Amino acid sequence: MDYRTAGVDIRAGEQAVEGIRDLVRSTYNANVMGDLGSFGGLYSFPHNSYSEPILVASTDGVGTKLRVAIKANRYDTIGQDLVNHCVNDILVQGAMPLFFLDYIGLGSLEPQMIKQIVSGMAKACTENGCALIGGEMAEMPGIYHKGDFDLVGTIVGAVDKQNLLPGSRIQKGDILIGIPSDGLHTNGYSLARRIVFEHLGLGVEDHVASLDSNVADLLLKVHRSYLPQLKPLLKDPRLHGLAHITGGGFLDNIPRVLPDRLTRPISISAPSSCRRSSAGSPASAALKSARCCEPSIAASA
Amino acid sequence: MDYRTAGVDIRAGEQAVEGIRDLVRSTYNANVMGDLGSFGGLYSFPHNSYSEPILVASTDGVGTKLRVAIKANRYDTIGQDLVNHCVNDILVQGAMPLFFLDYIGLGSLEPQMIKQIVSGMAKACTENGCALIGGEMAEMPGIYHKGDFDLVGTIVGAVDKQNLLPGSRIQKGDILIGIPSDGLHTNGYSLARRIVFEHLGLGVEDHVASLDSNVADLLLKVHRSYLPQLKPLLKDPRLHGLAHITGGGFLDNIPRVLPDRLTRPISISAPSSCRRSSAGSPASAALKSARCCEPSIAASA
Repeated sequence: MDYRTAGVDIRAGEQAVEGIRDLVRSTYNANVMGDLGSFGGLYSFPHNSYSEPILVASTDGVGTKLRVAIKANRYDTIGQDLVNHCVNDILVQGAMPLFFLDYIGLGSLEPQMIKQIVSGMAKACTENGCALIGGEMAEMPGIYHKGDFDLVGTIVGAVDKQNLLPGSRIQKGDILIGIPSDGLHTNGYSLARRIVFEHLGLGVEDHVASLDSNVADLLLKVHRSYLPQLKPLLKDPRLHGLAHITGGGFLDNIPRVLPDRLTRPISISAPSSCRRSSAGSPASAALKSARCCEPSIAASA
Repeated sequence: MDYRTAGVDIRAGEQAVEGIRDLVRSTYNANVMGDLGSFGGLYSFPHNSYSEPILVASTDGVGTKLRVAIKANRYDTIGQDLVNHCVNDILVQGAMPLFFLDYIGLGSLEPQMIKQIVSGMAKACTENGCALIGGEMAEMPGIYHKGDFDLVGTIVGAVDKQNLLPGSRIQKGDILIGIPSDGLHTNGYSLARRIVFEHLGLGVEDHVASLDSNVADLLLKVHRSYLPQLKPLLKDPRLHGLAHITGGGFLDNIPRVLPDRLTRPISISAPSSCRRSSAGSPASAALKSARCCEPSIAASA
């Protein structure tokens, strides 16, 4: 009995690595040492650029947005989702990304699927100035069904202690500014899928007239990185804190950056362009509902 | 329709976080800033301890050893497996661990199971001087069956450039020293499970007389960390390189540290205590077969 008999295809693994080698290398910068295939990824830390460097790290997945990608047989966007989501998670603490590592657990290794996933990660890594220095593909027929997979990413960035967010400056009277998301991003997909596919009975190729787009395009809209927009503001003293509005929405995420002494409710009045229109189908309302709330900046006027 | 109707239990998630809070905090050291619940984990990097710091990072899972843990309903050992595996992966490049992050993707959130997994990770993190600064629990009923899960870890460590392994000193005539594993560690479980559970028809509680232990205890033996044993040798000039013998065995892992010019076969003669005994059951042979090969040191005499 050998690995292949037990459901593990070592040759497919080698093919998959061959297929992603150039994509991964395209994310490298002068700080990356070594190459694919070493036990750990190596990143020369530019410690002279910091007086008191703090490493900021976050691990996340893309949730059951995976199921939409599988339904639509389109695997490049979720790689971008994953990287951008992680970039935002450390960005709200003031950190710029250094490097990224990924994990793909799957039922059976399909080199073409892997290549699409990694192409999305490489694209987003390059856009965010973040090197893809490591990764793991784990073929686990005992855990995942054929065609199913999970995708996990870890980002490490750095910030100088003096620029760490949230600072101690958040105070009563600060103004919250919301930056719109590009879609549902990577949260709420178990609920959204239930509504869109089961309750409304739509398929991935169905057209949503009021949004002039099909369901797959709408549900696979890439989780945007807020780095380009926020980078120029990170050291601005008027910026007191940032929150990445993910899983638990406003109510769970904004308190994560508020000091304990601030317990009063936040009053929200969205600009009229953000109010949910009463026109349009229930599908368009569901797909639009996250538009006005990611992420928020607490800043003084 | 709400999250719970869609199969996502937010309350169970909160309970799970409560259950692990003290375990996670027990791994903190003076470099950890912040607490559970911030967007990214914060680690103050002791840059003055290095002249040219290189960050070394690795992501991995524990493979289908998970299935044995699920069968045996025992979740503490796989957390240790994961941390120790990752520690070894960066140790072979000369790096000492700084911090660790985990990801648990699962079909339904069972706070007691999460607590067991995290207790194992916390134990191993503490033993290896590594802080558990971040993690994610993702309840994904659309990907994982109830009771099933995947467990992924990422480690970040550091080494001064001058101590990076493998050095350029590996040369013809170097001696390879193997340090035994404590069991199958975390590789080959799709194959091992097929042999032990299907071919031999054993159950997790069955006793293997020749090894005086039951199947669960044997297959869940913790992946040992080689850190305590190797730490005193990391800066010894006689140590030329290290390899962590995982998935691809000797043939895939030893070449990962060999310079291109060394292409001659390695001659292996195991000490007699390591030769596989012809006595004993096929089960004991299968369970013993990895004993003599993890990890190897290429060192001059």
